[in-house]
Amino acid sequence: MVNRELTLARHPRERLAVECFAIVERELGPIQSGQVLVRNLWTSVDASVLLRLREVGPEGYLPPFALGQSLIGLAVGEVCESRCSEFAAGDLVTHIYGFRDYALVRAGGETLAGVGSLRRIRRDLGAPEDYLGALGHTGITAYVGLIAVAGLSPGDVVWVSAAAGATGSVAAQIAKLRGHVVIGSAGSDDKVDYLLNELGLDAAFNYHDGDLRSLLRRSAPHGIDVYYDNVGGGHLEAALYELRNNGRVALCGAISGYDGEHTVGPRNMFQIVVKNLTLRGFRAGAYAAIEDEAKQAIGEWLRQGRLKMRSTIYEGLERAPEAIVGLARGANMGKTLVRSVVP
Amino acid sequence: MVNRELTLARHPRERLAVECFAIVERELGPIQSGQVLVRNLWTSVDASVLLRLREVGPEGYLPPFALGQSLIGLAVGEVCESRCSEFAAGDLVTHIYGFRDYALVRAGGETLAGVGSLRRIRRDLGAPEDYLGALGHTGITAYVGLIAVAGLSPGDVVWVSAAAGATGSVAAQIAKLRGHVVIGSAGSDDKVDYLLNELGLDAAFNYHDGDLRSLLRRSAPHGIDVYYDNVGGGHLEAALYELRNNGRVALCGAISGYDGEHTVGPRNMFQIVVKNLTLRGFRAGAYAAIEDEAKQAIGEWLRQGRLKMRSTIYEGLERAPEAIVGLARGANMGKTLVRSVVP
Repeated sequence: MVNRELTLARHPRERLAVECFAIVERELGPIQSGQVLVRNLWTSVDASVLLRLREVGPEGYLPPFALGQSLIGLAVGEVCESRCSEFAAGDLVTHIYGFRDYALVRAGGETLAGVGSLRRIRRDLGAPEDYLGALGHTGITAYVGLIAVAGLSPGDVVWVSAAAGATGSVAAQIAKLRGHVVIGSAGSDDKVDYLLNELGLDAAFNYHDGDLRSLLRRSAPHGIDVYYDNVGGGHLEAALYELRNNGRVALCGAISGYDGEHTVGPRNMFQIVVKNLTLRGFRAGAYAAIEDEAKQAIGEWLRQGRLKMRSTIYEGLERAPEAIVGLARGANMGKTLVRSVVP
Repeated sequence: MVNRELTLARHPRERLAVECFAIVERELGPIQSGQVLVRNLWTSVDASVLLRLREVGPEGYLPPFALGQSLIGLAVGEVCESRCSEFAAGDLVTHIYGFRDYALVRAGGETLAGVGSLRRIRRDLGAPEDYLGALGHTGITAYVGLIAVAGLSPGDVVWVSAAAGATGSVAAQIAKLRGHVVIGSAGSDDKVDYLLNELGLDAAFNYHDGDLRSLLRRSAPHGIDVYYDNVGGGHLEAALYELRNNGRVALCGAISGYDGEHTVGPRNMFQIVVKNLTLRGFRAGAYAAIEDEAKQAIGEWLRQGRLKMRSTIYEGLERAPEAIVGLARGANMGKTLVRSVVP
C-alpha cells in the first residue's frame, strides 16, 4: 500500500519554516510476522523533534533527521491488522511512528530513547489523545521532574517556565495540587491569562515584558526554592539569582537546545556554589521506578477534573509542518497535536 | 598596643598586583571580657579572599573588602592573654582574624560564613599549620565535596581540577585512597609532575597544553563519572561533555568567580539534560553533619603517611600581598600560607 509520510526536505537555516518539510508517498512493505499495521489517529509534536531538524544536533542526543528521512514521533493509533499474538485488530496502541498515515510497528521494538515502545492503551481512562498528554509521556515528565528530580518538599515556592506548554502546564498544576505557591511564565499575554485564570497559579508573567530577573522577583519577592526549567539560557540565569539556599532545578529544557549547542550558558554559575544549589537534568525513562506512581496520581486528578490539559490541534498530516513551526515559535497553547484525517 | 594589619589599598583593575595591598599600623584596643588576645602564627590564603578584592563581588557572597579595611582570613595562633574562661594563655587556636600580627577574638563570635569560630586545637595531631590545611577547612571541603556532594560511588572515574592546589590535592588523594581512577589537571608542568609522581594519580594534564576537552579525553578515554570543580568556566564545559550518564559535579569553584559575576557559563548545559547529570554547589559549613567523619578519616590517613600536603609558604606579613597574588596567578603549589614573624 502507498503511505503518506512527513519528511525533512531541507534543514532550517535561520528560522524554522514550513518549507523545511514535505509530505511524500512511500510504499509500505507487507506486514511481517511480529508486526502490527497501525492507522495513526494522533501524533504528538514535542520539543524533541525540534532538536533533530538541524544538520548538527546536540551531542549525545537522538541523531538529527537526514534529508528525505521520515520524521518519527510519539503517536496513538488503531491496529488494523496484526501478525503478533499480543495485539489484535481494533486495539488502541501508542508507538513512535507518528507523522504518517499508517505505520508498521514491531512489538518490543524501537523506542525513542527508551520511550514509546508499542503498548496497548485502555479506552476507559481517557480519550486516545490523552495518552500523548497528561496520561502519557508529557504527564510523566512533569511529575518525575517535580517529585523525583527537584525533590519537591512542603513549603517550596515553585517557578515553572513555559508553563502554558504541555509539560509545563501539568507541572504547574501538580505543584498547585500539592499545595505549593506556584509562579508560571510564558511568552504571551493570552498564556499568562490562562495560567492565572484557568490554572489558578499564584502569579504569572510574560517573559517579553522586561528583564527576566525583575519579572520573576516581582512574582516571587521572597525567592523560589524549585525551578522547573523548560527553557534554559536567560531563564535559568534568572532562576539561579532568585533561588534561595538549597534550591533545586529540574532541567527538562529541551527548547533551550533547539539551536543545537550554540546556546549561551548562565553567567552566574557561581550562585550554585554560594547557595548550595542543585541542578539536575533528566530525560524520559530515566526514572522508570516512579512512572506507575505518576500515572496513578495523574489519572486520579484527571478523573476528579482537577487537572486540565489544553491542546492546540492541527487537522490532517498536511498541517504537521505548521504544528512543528507553531511549537518552535511558541504559538501553541498546551499540548501540540496533529490529528490524522486518514482517507 | 600597636598592631600591623594587611589592608586593601586599592581595588584591582585588570590583574591583581601587590600594589593593591598595604600594611598599616593600627591601635589594638585593650582586651575586653570574653575576648582572647592571639599572636598569629599562620594565615591561610584561600581563593575566598580573591573574591572580596573587587569593588563588586559575586552576589550573595561575603561582601567585598572596603578600601582601607583590614583583610580577614582563617588563621592559627597562640593565646597570649585570655579574659574568657574557656581559653588560657598558651592555647593554640584557630580563628578568622589572619593577615595581622595580633588579633583580639571573642569566643563564639564572628565566623566566615559559618566557618572559623574561635577553637582550641590539639598539639598532638599535627603541626599548627595543618589545621589550616588537611586537618582544617581545606581537608573538610575536599572530603565533603567528594563524598556528600558528588556522592562518590565504587567504580567512579574522577576528575579534579586545580589538583595541585590545596583543596584539589586533598580531593584527588582521597579519591585515590578510596580506590578510584583519578585524573588531575593543573596549570604548569611542575604541578603535573607532582600529580603523577608524588600523588600517584592515574593521569594528569596541564590545561595550557591545548583544548581542554581533548586533553581530558586523552586522560580519560572512556569518560568520567565525577568532576570535582575548583575552576568553573571552560573546565566545567569540558566536564559536561565528558561526563557519562548519571555523572555528578561538585562545584567548589571559588576561582571561577574571581572576576566577579562576569564569567562565561558553559555553552553546553543541554548535556545535563541529555545525560541525567547532577551539578551541586557547596560552601563550607553546609555539611556539618559529616565534618567529624571527615576529620577522623583525614587524621587517620595523615598519621599513616598516606595523605600529603604541600605548602607554599611566604615568610612574614609583609609578604602576604605576594602570597595572594601568587594564588591568583596559579603560581603556588598546594596550600598557600603566610607565616607570621612577629617581633
